[in-house]
Amino acid sequence: MSIRPDWIAVDWGTSNLRVWAMQGRDVLAARSSDAGMNTLEPGGFEPALLALIDSWLGDGATPVIACGMVGSRQGWGEAPYLDVPTVPTGSPARMPVRDARITVSVLPGIKQADPADVMRGEETQIAGLIAEEPRFDGVVCLPGTHTKWVRISAEEVCHFRTAMTGEMHSLLSKQSVLRHSITADWDDQTFLDAVDEVMSRPERIASSLFSIRAAGLVGRECASPAARLSGILIGAELAAMKPYWLGQDVALIGSDKLCALYAQALRLTGLEARILDATRMTLAGLAAAYEGSLT
Amino acid sequence: MSIRPDWIAVDWGTSNLRVWAMQGRDVLAARSSDAGMNTLEPGGFEPALLALIDSWLGDGATPVIACGMVGSRQGWGEAPYLDVPTVPTGSPARMPVRDARITVSVLPGIKQADPADVMRGEETQIAGLIAEEPRFDGVVCLPGTHTKWVRISAEEVCHFRTAMTGEMHSLLSKQSVLRHSITADWDDQTFLDAVDEVMSRPERIASSLFSIRAAGLVGRECASPAARLSGILIGAELAAMKPYWLGQDVALIGSDKLCALYAQALRLTGLEARILDATRMTLAGLAAAYEGSLT
Repeated sequence: MSIRPDWIAVDWGTSNLRVWAMQGRDVLAARSSDAGMNTLEPGGFEPALLALIDSWLGDGATPVIACGMVGSRQGWGEAPYLDVPTVPTGSPARMPVRDARITVSVLPGIKQADPADVMRGEETQIAGLIAEEPRFDGVVCLPGTHTKWVRISAEEVCHFRTAMTGEMHSLLSKQSVLRHSITADWDDQTFLDAVDEVMSRPERIASSLFSIRAAGLVGRECASPAARLSGILIGAELAAMKPYWLGQDVALIGSDKLCALYAQALRLTGLEARILDATRMTLAGLAAAYEGSLT
Repeated sequence: MSIRPDWIAVDWGTSNLRVWAMQGRDVLAARSSDAGMNTLEPGGFEPALLALIDSWLGDGATPVIACGMVGSRQGWGEAPYLDVPTVPTGSPARMPVRDARITVSVLPGIKQADPADVMRGEETQIAGLIAEEPRFDGVVCLPGTHTKWVRISAEEVCHFRTAMTGEMHSLLSKQSVLRHSITADWDDQTFLDAVDEVMSRPERIASSLFSIRAAGLVGRECASPAARLSGILIGAELAAMKPYWLGQDVALIGSDKLCALYAQALRLTGLEARILDATRMTLAGLAAAYEGSLT
């Protein structure tokens, strides 16, 4: 039996494309590919989408609701940013399509003038959280390539900041001199010691990284250089974001592995963060936008 | 007339090979290539060297004195590290050669157990400084891919630390999302403002980088994103290295451009650093080692 969704949910980031065939809020099927924004030319977005969803399309025009970097200047088409403070879901931008079997709407990102900051995609996960918990008053941390810390109150995004922790980790562990030292070994205590060390003396960040490499050369390897690198970078992020998490109700939305690391690190400060399922939040946010488009 | 040096000085780093035909302390000729350690297989060092110096060789065996990463485990052969505190020049390690027209000696690097740290190449520039100024008592900063801060007293290296500032700058400006924002524009005040900002609030380092990118997206570009990135990274390094430079006589050894930036940044703290010519220091250090080998 063929799948005929009411609408199609799309999370289209820099390096991945994920689609869900939806009936109201229920998922009928899910697919994904590595056709992220970074891999596509301007004319390549519609074909990349159709390659995943073609078999789900019927006679009429199926609405497609998308979020993420697909709405950036380098994406399918620009979906303008909302300005903080703002509710996280704004009017979607319609993308030009050739195939009459779809209409494509992309949700806007959010921008902040001072300090300058932007997000695309995370606002939809936040919309999902607010759809599920309208009275949420606290901070959402969304760990990833560019981790976001977002203050939420009265169903609005008040202000936010980004740390490039995931991207720094990738560059340092794969392309810097530290790549010679990073192994698959992991040790929780090494991670926590590094978080604690950098949070209490953040001014030492710049001198602490090279010692990961040097320790191996002088015969003083730590139990896990990988855990130490993660601990230094996440510790530096927590030091920078202290005004966000201190004394707040913190929810984490991201991959299981990253959220668990952030929760461990925050526990050092006495804070118990809740971990929310990232895909569920994305779908709840896209569903809220789809339902809004029907009224 | 052909050049017939007494000896040949070699500075062999990760990405470059530089050679000088020497008569005592005088330079007869200089050549260089991009045959750095990173580009060479184990058997490739002798041919890479001969490609530059072949025409300088006569009937006898010409001594070659080298410093740098050529003496690392991944180099021609390992020249063991000296331990701090130490004079900066130790017994050179002889490398195996096939060509009877040369003997090759590589100077040892220096290592420190706690905090773990290593250097290879910089110790020879420090030896050059001490050869020229035996009474130097202060700190040498050698800006580069891996910037070293070295405390010198009584002709010895007492202790040192490394910051990966140059490598971080290269990764962030060429390979991270910030590459979209970095232009050729330079503005001194933007650089100094960023140094000052990060030195006074080093805990903000992790949240300050992404705003370089975001500022452009929200229409608030700073005068020079490149200057801001350099300022953040050098500011973070100065914050980490404060115990080194505070109240000290500081000498800078490195490229003219980098030394000028560090001198500008240090001037913000009221410190006037001297800039010493890097090649002169390298040659003075290699010459001291050559003269030591004759006695």
